[in-house]
Amino acid sequence: MLADLMQDEVLRAFSSYALIVILKVMMMAPLTAYYRFTRGAFANEEDVALKSAEEKKKQLRTDRDVERVRRCHLNDLENVVPFVLVGLFYTLSGPELSAALLHFRIFTASRVFHTISYIGALPQPCRALSFLLGLLVTVSMAYHALSQVLVI
Amino acid sequence: MLADLMQDEVLRAFSSYALIVILKVMMMAPLTAYYRFTRGAFANEEDVALKSAEEKKKQLRTDRDVERVRRCHLNDLENVVPFVLVGLFYTLSGPELSAALLHFRIFTASRVFHTISYIGALPQPCRALSFLLGLLVTVSMAYHALSQVLVI
Amino acid sequence: MLADLMQDEVLRAFSSYALIVILKVMMMAPLTAYYRFTRGAFANEEDVALKSAEEKKKQLRTDRDVERVRRCHLNDLENVVPFVLVGLFYTLSGPELSAALLHFRIFTASRVFHTISYIGALPQPCRALSFLLGLLVTVSMAYHALSQVLVI
Repeated sequence: MLADLMQDEVLRAFSSYALIVILKVMMMAPLTAYYRFTRGAFANEEDVALKSAEEKKKQLRTDRDVERVRRCHLNDLENVVPFVLVGLFYTLSGPELSAALLHFRIFTASRVFHTISYIGALPQPCRALSFLLGLLVTVSMAYHALSQVLVI
Repeated sequence: MLADLMQDEVLRAFSSYALIVILKVMMMAPLTAYYRFTRGAFANEEDVALKSAEEKKKQLRTDRDVERVRRCHLNDLENVVPFVLVGLFYTLSGPELSAALLHFRIFTASRVFHTISYIGALPQPCRALSFLLGLLVTVSMAYHALSQVLVI
Repeated sequence: MLADLMQDEVLRAFSSYALIVILKVMMMAPLTAYYRFTRGAFANEEDVALKSAEEKKKQLRTDRDVERVRRCHLNDLENVVPFVLVGLFYTLSGPELSAALLHFRIFTASRVFHTISYIGALPQPCRALSFLLGLLVTVSMAYHALSQVLVI
């Protein structure tokens, strides 16, 4: 029963792209850890427990680069999670495969470019446009899904 | 196969309300941008790159109103995402349509009122009660779903 | 139709563990409120409206313990939400029940231990290892799901 659902081509495509963008989001956590260690900027006392008293004080701080990665991570949560949730209803509402692929591909590309823009501090409007593009794709999917299923 | 699922009335109702609250959450990002521009409070250097050196320094700051919108956005993520995920399992566990609609409607109303309370800084306990009501709806759905499907 | 899906044993197991970890995440909000009240550390002016002018000033502050709970909550969102979303695709990709249960159980245990490590400020690498274990479980599920459904 359940396994039959994956015969659906739109669901297969959605699963693929959704998993790829979720994996991208999950990479932000190790990236934050990398920045914390190279910048020597930690948030918790137990994270610097083995260091000298002087080092401890110095490393319990916020760092510009670490905060940048954290903002990028939070922005991902704010945009990728809605994409996956909306995408699920969109997929269930029976879109055409070609239209669905267009949505999934533009969103995935927009979020990869958003991360590059944010971490690389590329000049605006790189980050703003990639963010906006992803938002519009999600709104378009929500609109299509609502137009098919709306019951209030 | 997949498209047949949307024949289910509870799923149609759940999709509708879930999409509406997710769209509400997504509106918080443009709202944050609006506050950042009107208050002149930015988080990234590239966001103020075109401004004079003096303006740059002044506008790379946190602002009370911007932080308020950001806390509201984060509170949405902490509550609306669990609602949609729990709601999916709840819907799959086969509730009665009338009970399901009651849950979905109260949750949606509670989150709209929560946003108004937060952004408008309404006196407490407006925000606390709307938050609590949404939490209780989600816990009630989780309890119903667990009572139907629990396998550990 | 829809209710038949819950006959699937992997979906029943996934629903159970997903609901349990989501409920665990939702408990972080009341816990934050508890710490805010006991530490007297609030973020919004309306939260301290009934207090004396002097108390107001003192209680509109960030507190070490409150910030710790909030970081734990955010870390939950960053990890539990991807687990539930990836887990859904993993479940749809038709894994064996025993393998699926192993993934779900290790993840759930890892997040419970992560919360204990974070709130209790246990010495590292308690928190780091529990975080890493949860991440690896989710990546393993994503890998399995992608290997079954990948369509780009």
